Amino acid sequence: MYESWNPSALEIKAARWLLNIMEDAPVAFELWDGQRIQIYKGKPELLLRFRNRKALWGVMTNPDRNLGEAYSLGSLEVEGDLVRLAEIGTTHRPDFLAERSTLGKLVNVFGRAKSNNLSGSKDNIHHHYDLSNEFYSLWLDRDHMQYTCAYYENAERTLEQAQRAKLDHVCRKLQLKPGDEVVEAGCGWGGLGLFMAREYGAKVRAFNISHEQIRFAQEKAREAGLQHQVQYIEDDYRNASGKCDVFVSVGMLEHVGAENFQTLGGVIDRCLRKEGRGLIHSIGRNRPRPMNIWVEKRIFPGAYPPTIKEMMDIFEPFNFSVLDVENLRLHYAKTLEDWVQRYEENIDTIQRMFDVIFVRAWRLYLCGSVAAFRTGELQLFQVLFNRGVNNNVPWTREHLYR
Amino acid sequence: MYESWNPSALEIKAARWLLNIMEDAPVAFELWDGQRIQIYKGKPELLLRFRNRKALWGVMTNPDRNLGEAYSLGSLEVEGDLVRLAEIGTTHRPDFLAERSTLGKLVNVFGRAKSNNLSGSKDNIHHHYDLSNEFYSLWLDRDHMQYTCAYYENAERTLEQAQRAKLDHVCRKLQLKPGDEVVEAGCGWGGLGLFMAREYGAKVRAFNISHEQIRFAQEKAREAGLQHQVQYIEDDYRNASGKCDVFVSVGMLEHVGAENFQTLGGVIDRCLRKEGRGLIHSIGRNRPRPMNIWVEKRIFPGAYPPTIKEMMDIFEPFNFSVLDVENLRLHYAKTLEDWVQRYEENIDTIQRMFDVIFVRAWRLYLCGSVAAFRTGELQLFQVLFNRGVNNNVPWTREHLYR
Repeated sequence: MYESWNPSALEIKAARWLLNIMEDAPVAFELWDGQRIQIYKGKPELLLRFRNRKALWGVMTNPDRNLGEAYSLGSLEVEGDLVRLAEIGTTHRPDFLAERSTLGKLVNVFGRAKSNNLSGSKDNIHHHYDLSNEFYSLWLDRDHMQYTCAYYENAERTLEQAQRAKLDHVCRKLQLKPGDEVVEAGCGWGGLGLFMAREYGAKVRAFNISHEQIRFAQEKAREAGLQHQVQYIEDDYRNASGKCDVFVSVGMLEHVGAENFQTLGGVIDRCLRKEGRGLIHSIGRNRPRPMNIWVEKRIFPGAYPPTIKEMMDIFEPFNFSVLDVENLRLHYAKTLEDWVQRYEENIDTIQRMFDVIFVRAWRLYLCGSVAAFRTGELQLFQVLFNRGVNNNVPWTREHLYR
Repeated sequence: MYESWNPSALEIKAARWLLNIMEDAPVAFELWDGQRIQIYKGKPELLLRFRNRKALWGVMTNPDRNLGEAYSLGSLEVEGDLVRLAEIGTTHRPDFLAERSTLGKLVNVFGRAKSNNLSGSKDNIHHHYDLSNEFYSLWLDRDHMQYTCAYYENAERTLEQAQRAKLDHVCRKLQLKPGDEVVEAGCGWGGLGLFMAREYGAKVRAFNISHEQIRFAQEKAREAGLQHQVQYIEDDYRNASGKCDVFVSVGMLEHVGAENFQTLGGVIDRCLRKEGRGLIHSIGRNRPRPMNIWVEKRIFPGAYPPTIKEMMDIFEPFNFSVLDVENLRLHYAKTLEDWVQRYEENIDTIQRMFDVIFVRAWRLYLCGSVAAFRTGELQLFQVLFNRGVNNNVPWTREHLYR
């Protein structure tokens, strides 16, 4: 892994040039011969150690893709806060290195994930969610295994409190009541479905194509004696049938792909009763951009966070009425901070379960995600809707805050 | 106005056919010879009296355009609730009579209003808002002269309370504080600007191209001794200059035209400081449709209520972050009900100011608008946004409901 040849004059020049165009970024480099390169006046927050020339050239030519690769493999080491590195990467990014630059486009056009048709979705979802339930349970909240943005009523709330508050916030928005029939698309480990059944008396049919997650959820439902009230179905949301009072999807839309939004709208239109309500909770964007290529390749194949404009393709063709859009961006930054802390607390166990490359890749992914939500690269939208002709809505949103 | 020839066999057949395809609509017709035509079993809620054949054929071939004309001229009289007529017109509308039918398109392509370039906007706005301040003051709320959707914290609130609550709701969403510099685009009679100055200590520059409204607002500011804190400027929003902490526009977007949304976004981008907040309040749609042709021709030239998807052209190109979208559709139905009641209480005065055709046209417009909001043909969106990199936002929306 370590380079035996010393850096060339060109490489030293190139490294200085990269630091130069990042202007006042508090970053220094260390090359593989131990020499330090620094432009920043003062003590830098971050030291990037390039262990070989491939790492340097990789980061120089396509940081979106290669920084993650180099860090995971250990050919790039980082002294300092990884979240800050990702933040600086966003705020000090030179335009010509962006994913949309000519170079970036050329490199990125290869190696994207499978499209989200029925079989592609299954492969893509298997890649991420079937890693192992034990892995996720090491760092997600203990009570509800929520792998989506929590809702912190204030900054002092714990992860457990905030995930419970999120489930409650969703149910309140939906005005869920006993006997309501719910269809859930993409149910994760089943936390929301169980919560809706136990706390609100709803009847839930929840769809998910992740085999590991469905088995876990079914087991939990049996343990709670709620297996007749909550059905966990290992199938694609596109195969949902029957009628419902409530349609809910928390953290699935990111995997649907904008080209399938109208199909999703059609599924909702087929299922939702006249007086029905729906909520879609999804990572999003202020403006359309592809997912970071490294995250999409290594962590989340097929993922695409849509803008509000793109999301409207779910609703407009079917005359659904959007009642409320809430942006919970900073709640997701905080959720991820909590996850990162628990992840680091369990680092030895995780390394035994996988390997050091996996540990480093997921650390970077989690820290990079904190940065993406802090810097506004990513958003979190909760969209509440009903059918356009339904006047049975509360006067105000005050009931959410009682 | 009255027809001397009796209805032909064809006309009687056509009238029966129209009632037939409206299925179970509780409506009957009376033709100009006094004969009654009814399909509905039971006592109809509405009797439409056609005073001549032109009225009948007009409503038959293009109700969107000609019902308003015939009603205003008195060649169509309505016994029963006008709001119910408009509701039934929406819920029982046969598809081939819709504005998007081939026939409807052919007829509607003529006679649309001027485009909203700088001079076209001035003509369009003059048509509606310079009717006379006295006219509007007869039926709008007394305290703030708000010609936009009010906010009823509960169904018992008066129009005055609800308009004040709307102003407060907007200021709370914007987290307005003393010393904040505000740019307001389309300020009506100046109610919001004065409220922001008096209640929140803000400094406001408010733009409007309606001469009558600007004069009224300037006079009010002088009376309140706030003329140094609130500037009312007779100019187009596109000419706004200087920086601001808050950008607000309540009820102007309907007149901007979707083709100008990106220009509006550019104006906001030019004016809004880094930590700035913005709010746009507008009539909208669940799906794109042109404004009713009669309303656009006779009442509101150049008006177009956009969908959320269309509104996003204001925000996405400039990386604004949408924080909160609230749909206040039923609040506008209730606001309009309050306006209709006061309009009818002042009908004699209004008829003396204008004429009977005007009185009937505006009655139909106000009642038709109640119906449009009740049936979900129109929506009311409040969109709160800031710059994508601004993390100075409240944790939750609870502060709106204290």
